[in-house]
Amino acid sequence: MKNTFGASVAVTIFGESHGSAVGAVVDGLAPGIAVEEAFIRHQLTLRRPYGSISTGRREEDAFQIVSGVFEGHTTGTPLCILIPNADTRSRDYAATRSLARPGHADYTAYLKYHGWEDYRGGGHFSGRITAALAAAGAVAISALRGRGIRLGTHIARCAGVPDRGFQGELTAEIAALNDRRFAVLDEQAGEEMRSRIRAAAEQGDSVGGILETAVTGFPPGVGEPWFDTLEGLLAHALFSVPAVKGVEFGAGFAGADLTGSAYNDPFYLEGTTVKTRSNHNGGINGGISNGMPLLLRCVVKPTPSIFREQETVDFLKGEGAVLRLQGRHDPAVVHRARVVVDSVIALTLCDALALRFGTDWLKGEGT
Amino acid sequence: MKNTFGASVAVTIFGESHGSAVGAVVDGLAPGIAVEEAFIRHQLTLRRPYGSISTGRREEDAFQIVSGVFEGHTTGTPLCILIPNADTRSRDYAATRSLARPGHADYTAYLKYHGWEDYRGGGHFSGRITAALAAAGAVAISALRGRGIRLGTHIARCAGVPDRGFQGELTAEIAALNDRRFAVLDEQAGEEMRSRIRAAAEQGDSVGGILETAVTGFPPGVGEPWFDTLEGLLAHALFSVPAVKGVEFGAGFAGADLTGSAYNDPFYLEGTTVKTRSNHNGGINGGISNGMPLLLRCVVKPTPSIFREQETVDFLKGEGAVLRLQGRHDPAVVHRARVVVDSVIALTLCDALALRFGTDWLKGEGT
Amino acid sequence: MKNTFGASVAVTIFGESHGSAVGAVVDGLAPGIAVEEAFIRHQLTLRRPYGSISTGRREEDAFQIVSGVFEGHTTGTPLCILIPNADTRSRDYAATRSLARPGHADYTAYLKYHGWEDYRGGGHFSGRITAALAAAGAVAISALRGRGIRLGTHIARCAGVPDRGFQGELTAEIAALNDRRFAVLDEQAGEEMRSRIRAAAEQGDSVGGILETAVTGFPPGVGEPWFDTLEGLLAHALFSVPAVKGVEFGAGFAGADLTGSAYNDPFYLEGTTVKTRSNHNGGINGGISNGMPLLLRCVVKPTPSIFREQETVDFLKGEGAVLRLQGRHDPAVVHRARVVVDSVIALTLCDALALRFGTDWLKGEGT
Amino acid sequence: MKNTFGASVAVTIFGESHGSAVGAVVDGLAPGIAVEEAFIRHQLTLRRPYGSISTGRREEDAFQIVSGVFEGHTTGTPLCILIPNADTRSRDYAATRSLARPGHADYTAYLKYHGWEDYRGGGHFSGRITAALAAAGAVAISALRGRGIRLGTHIARCAGVPDRGFQGELTAEIAALNDRRFAVLDEQAGEEMRSRIRAAAEQGDSVGGILETAVTGFPPGVGEPWFDTLEGLLAHALFSVPAVKGVEFGAGFAGADLTGSAYNDPFYLEGTTVKTRSNHNGGINGGISNGMPLLLRCVVKPTPSIFREQETVDFLKGEGAVLRLQGRHDPAVVHRARVVVDSVIALTLCDALALRFGTDWLKGEGT
Repeated sequence: MKNTFGASVAVTIFGESHGSAVGAVVDGLAPGIAVEEAFIRHQLTLRRPYGSISTGRREEDAFQIVSGVFEGHTTGTPLCILIPNADTRSRDYAATRSLARPGHADYTAYLKYHGWEDYRGGGHFSGRITAALAAAGAVAISALRGRGIRLGTHIARCAGVPDRGFQGELTAEIAALNDRRFAVLDEQAGEEMRSRIRAAAEQGDSVGGILETAVTGFPPGVGEPWFDTLEGLLAHALFSVPAVKGVEFGAGFAGADLTGSAYNDPFYLEGTTVKTRSNHNGGINGGISNGMPLLLRCVVKPTPSIFREQETVDFLKGEGAVLRLQGRHDPAVVHRARVVVDSVIALTLCDALALRFGTDWLKGEGT
Repeated sequence: MKNTFGASVAVTIFGESHGSAVGAVVDGLAPGIAVEEAFIRHQLTLRRPYGSISTGRREEDAFQIVSGVFEGHTTGTPLCILIPNADTRSRDYAATRSLARPGHADYTAYLKYHGWEDYRGGGHFSGRITAALAAAGAVAISALRGRGIRLGTHIARCAGVPDRGFQGELTAEIAALNDRRFAVLDEQAGEEMRSRIRAAAEQGDSVGGILETAVTGFPPGVGEPWFDTLEGLLAHALFSVPAVKGVEFGAGFAGADLTGSAYNDPFYLEGTTVKTRSNHNGGINGGISNGMPLLLRCVVKPTPSIFREQETVDFLKGEGAVLRLQGRHDPAVVHRARVVVDSVIALTLCDALALRFGTDWLKGEGT
Repeated sequence: MKNTFGASVAVTIFGESHGSAVGAVVDGLAPGIAVEEAFIRHQLTLRRPYGSISTGRREEDAFQIVSGVFEGHTTGTPLCILIPNADTRSRDYAATRSLARPGHADYTAYLKYHGWEDYRGGGHFSGRITAALAAAGAVAISALRGRGIRLGTHIARCAGVPDRGFQGELTAEIAALNDRRFAVLDEQAGEEMRSRIRAAAEQGDSVGGILETAVTGFPPGVGEPWFDTLEGLLAHALFSVPAVKGVEFGAGFAGADLTGSAYNDPFYLEGTTVKTRSNHNGGINGGISNGMPLLLRCVVKPTPSIFREQETVDFLKGEGAVLRLQGRHDPAVVHRARVVVDSVIALTLCDALALRFGTDWLKGEGT
Repeated sequence: MKNTFGASVAVTIFGESHGSAVGAVVDGLAPGIAVEEAFIRHQLTLRRPYGSISTGRREEDAFQIVSGVFEGHTTGTPLCILIPNADTRSRDYAATRSLARPGHADYTAYLKYHGWEDYRGGGHFSGRITAALAAAGAVAISALRGRGIRLGTHIARCAGVPDRGFQGELTAEIAALNDRRFAVLDEQAGEEMRSRIRAAAEQGDSVGGILETAVTGFPPGVGEPWFDTLEGLLAHALFSVPAVKGVEFGAGFAGADLTGSAYNDPFYLEGTTVKTRSNHNGGINGGISNGMPLLLRCVVKPTPSIFREQETVDFLKGEGAVLRLQGRHDPAVVHRARVVVDSVIALTLCDALALRFGTDWLKGEGT
């Protein structure tokens, strides 16, 4: 299905970096969800580059809701959001068109589209498309919030610097994160991360990181035993966040070295609620939510656009070449990817919930 | 779509641990693929428990091809394989029905199926179902081989012991792996792993590990930029392998600490073929294969069935409980999961290839 | 997705006419639906050929539930039903393998499967496969009945003889139909139909007909405005009933000659329930159910297997030929197709309901 | 999947009658297809109301290609077309909001969307949305033409007046049709139809009709034996054309009264090409194309918007009411629906072809 994801709540994205607009269609949302334009704007702001640690490209990200919203609420019919592209400088890219940027999709786009692709600024592969995901995701996040489901993502690691983990009352941690432009739990770690990003930028280089997400209030009993496991659905979507190269749940890869007795999450009762003492399974057993918070991490590779000389090929001429990148690029995207991660998780969870409980379930008036 | 996966080549699995049989239907395979019963048997043998490092349950895994094969070749219509269950001892499970085994799906199955689930031996959540996946996957592996695509998986880590990585000529490494019951590249590491598995078993405990897969000969230009990225499709399927809690490609999570200049894979020409010097992207750029080997890893958590006392709840009585597990269980499944990983990868790749090149593409006589 | 249909409740069918068995997997059914083996047997009996108006092939249609049922109820996991093939006489077909039977799929199967198809008795294209649909459909019909939804189909026309239309209390009409082997509302019309079928058979010829289905108790508000309209979903599935070449709802094709004032169904209130005076729209407006009975018809073409000499080609030799059919064939299938029509409608409605109201909705205890 | 249709080439539509725009996203089109803006404009013109036989609403149908086209050709990435709504008079509709128009979706929309729907001018249910389908379909029609596949639809019947059937050289007949605003093969029949439409309009009434489509040059071997039959896919899509209540292939419902010997299409050889003498099966056997022209018909019910007094209910007040419709409405839509039928058929065929032959197949330079 390609650029569409979801069985009951489905999102379709379109657009190119230097076309007239990028956009998304979200279909299957329950009717009656309040669409908060201020919150969409907030999410787009979080995604937008800023300060010295980001690309010089500055987009207003004015968005237009084309359909699916009436008198401030979702209608239940397809919701289309458009985000016009304004600050495009196509002349930056034409010269290097067939010089495959290492780590980028220039060469694979050519293999797949045989030269018909819009190569300007990464075309349909550009991180620019994620503005549409962020806008669509904002509506999904609102919908979840209306049912008491909250999610938040922090930069668990960046340029080798670890953030502290989630601790204490998760919902409060999440709430705090959502207002931070550079989403860390430990501000000092954040300071150090930004300093290393700047240092890398000065050397024409880039850095990567790890994003960690927690979801609270997610109902138990959602997900399928095979194929459409909650992990499988979330991972499927998350690999669409540009630069993500790995996804893990709960203890993740570190769990490989634990014994079963250390890894297993003992069940206990808190009142009549079944909980687990630890959460190495990330809130999911057998592909199905168990009522504990969902916990997952994804790795964001270092931004491939660097300003150092790189070996490459000119795939049209069929000869080796040296690449000296021009243009505007981010020395890190992990802090901007955060809101995109939240967005695709929220859209995926809306889909799983609608499948499980029906298309009206998400229209609840909230907690 | 739940227990079905794939858009052009789709696999559906069914069965319970203690029902009459488990099985799979593979639909959309090209006609004319040689179905090698000996190879299916071989794959089922690799999945089967053996020796002192596995459960005492011993299944013959006699399989029956119900449909879709005629005169030794696929017909192109749905291929159904059944594997009867023989060695079932249902009495072992009835007593502990509502004692949620930590790390297992007993409790989430109850949440989802409200008590109607077949709880015997894990029911539809049992690793037993993977015999059907292994059988279906064997046909997919044969189909890929017919087009010169090979894949192999080794136990990159088990109980804290690392195997050596792939090196030298990948296709030869893969070929060697496929005949090994305990799939390591370094036999001494394998010896140490098995010794630690036995040690854990003696203490009533279990261990986990990491599986690493390489795919050679995969055509470039396959996969989609968003949502149906090659990574997303593979990860979606891999989380159906029981106990998998994380999937990463290329440098994976370790890549978070690299700089862009170290991570980027420089392109170069070998004759007229574009290659990359390193392969930190695991053969995939922008969701699309680039012609280099696909490289991925998944983490297999320590087997949740352990024989130590565990805290839990009785979810029918709504009270705390202590669990002392009976029955037959594996102290490790990572070595058995290997063939299941190969299977779901092969099925997923067949689907991606059929979508890209049409339904007949896989029937080529090939190398 | 080919041989799978449905987004939330999905059915997959497999098997060949002369293979070991045909079967179906139904995935996504709510847990806790009573599975009445006697009713499955009843439905298979209705589908089975009988008397002088059917093929001489006589199958016991013993069925085996392989998975998804535990202690007499659905578990919520994939339900696989197998129906072994017993009375197969493959020798009848080998000689005429490449003589394309007019109106049959022999030639198109060859075009699609390039000669690898199992050609014996129609292979995967055989009406035999519908036994699996009938068995799977029986469970869906039970599920719908549990929520007060009833459906029934009569032979509205056969060999030029019309049955009377539905009249009076629809649910009673439906109940009466379901016990009739030759499903007509007017027994005298049925007598005349059977007499014409026998007359056609004596001349080595065959006849067709029209099936009309009514569904009562179907909830309003189900279906989508575009693409997944209730009409579109039902028609999609119904064209899988062999020999169906047209599907119409409400007034159908006859409605082309009405004026809007005659066609429109005026709304009125019966107590607090909104009803329509006429039902030319077949219970569906804008793709969505309106609470009135669903009404639809499909045309079943005359059975293509006739015993008269027919002009054809031998597609392997590439030359013209004359076909004189051997074997066992039905002079009419419209009366047998009835139960298959009910089955695919029931499966499709279960899917639409599960999407709308969630996966648990169909497990209600109901009327 | 609701407002999205297709597995390999998928179309998503969005918009409301009185929102800012309607639009479509087509994903999965091969790269390199020439996008002829003049042809899109032509198709939109054919769909547009005109003269005395149509609604007074006049839209410019200026369209904007937002993505997926670069230098005049498809890129292979999602193609989004927007058509702004200009001539909207929302005041016409507010007063009658909860008076269910008989034959319309007002009431079912309310049942499904619980009052959150945009009710102005039919909202998302408006025929206005088909402008987006016509624009998207124009690209699909061009793509098919590039491979020598042509399709055309005529008004086979309108207001009781029959057009003559296709005869002689089909491709020439199709070519002639495509330039006609009122698509009939017999101009005199067309004259009579228009006269009856005007007569109905004068009486505040409306008429219906039947559209017949022929497709030439479609490759044999496309379609699936079960569920995704070519008939099932086409019918699924066609029921999205507003007012379509029935779809039939080849001889259709009239075939019910034929004998098998009259219905069967004898095969013969023309050179090395296998053809059939008649085409009662509409070019499809067993769900798969046989190389003959595809032939299908769909019935378009009389436009439900009439100006006569109609009995109805006010579903918000819960009381009976009399409806006297205001606003601008068509006394017939069958002539405008023609281009929408062509569009959804073309999109569906592109999907089936891409699944069968791969995503690049449609980019051929062709005739």
